[in-house]
Amino acid sequence: MTSRIAVISIDALRPRPIAEFWAAVLGWQILEEDPDFITIGPADRPGPTIDVCPVPERKTVKNRLHLDLRADGSTAAAEVERLIGLGARHADVGQDPDSSWTVLADPEGNEFCVLARSVQDVEGAR
Amino acid sequence: MTSRIAVISIDALRPRPIAEFWAAVLGWQILEEDPDFITIGPADRPGPTIDVCPVPERKTVKNRLHLDLRADGSTAAAEVERLIGLGARHADVGQDPDSSWTVLADPEGNEFCVLARSVQDVEGAR
Repeated sequence: MTSRIAVISIDALRPRPIAEFWAAVLGWQILEEDPDFITIGPADRPGPTIDVCPVPERKTVKNRLHLDLRADGSTAAAEVERLIGLGARHADVGQDPDSSWTVLADPEGNEFCVLARSVQDVEGAR
Repeated sequence: MTSRIAVISIDALRPRPIAEFWAAVLGWQILEEDPDFITIGPADRPGPTIDVCPVPERKTVKNRLHLDLRADGSTAAAEVERLIGLGARHADVGQDPDSSWTVLADPEGNEFCVLARSVQDVEGAR
């Protein structure tokens, strides 16, 4: 008897561009669209989906929860460039300038990190 | 070329009790403990792990990201009772009182939901 993580829910002033941003980041698709949420998820892999939910208030403080991503099929540096092209921007949350990860924020300012080691680096090290 | 969600990172004033809470919620184990983070994860399933990271500031506003959980091996009602026993409490984020899900918060106030349908309900409906 436990719980399983089914959904990571993200509040957004404008859900559609945030759902499209994260779908492009993760290579996911819009699975369902409803006035109360937009669900995005992977076509081919189990695991949590993301719901983007409309809220009236904008982001004010550093998020207490954030996602750490790994580049899949490229290097972290190339993936950071791709994400910047999708609308991410560099973010300063007081991280050590020598950190191995890169701190970015989505178009509504939600911080996330790109880890230095790609999926292939981690799988190759196993 | 995409990114994959590797880690859901949670800021905590006191990381150890929050890591223990979420490990008990999810049936996960502490995989790594470092001054900068505690990693918890499942023994038997791929997917994102959780890092609980120490921060000096306490939670102030409703989280912009939250997790939605499904009961695995029990009903939502029984799972909510179990989670309350682990240190969760009911939370009011302005949800409709007729919502099918239950809004709870972890010991540092991080909101999360327990969805009405269990893992077995969803898998049975496929």
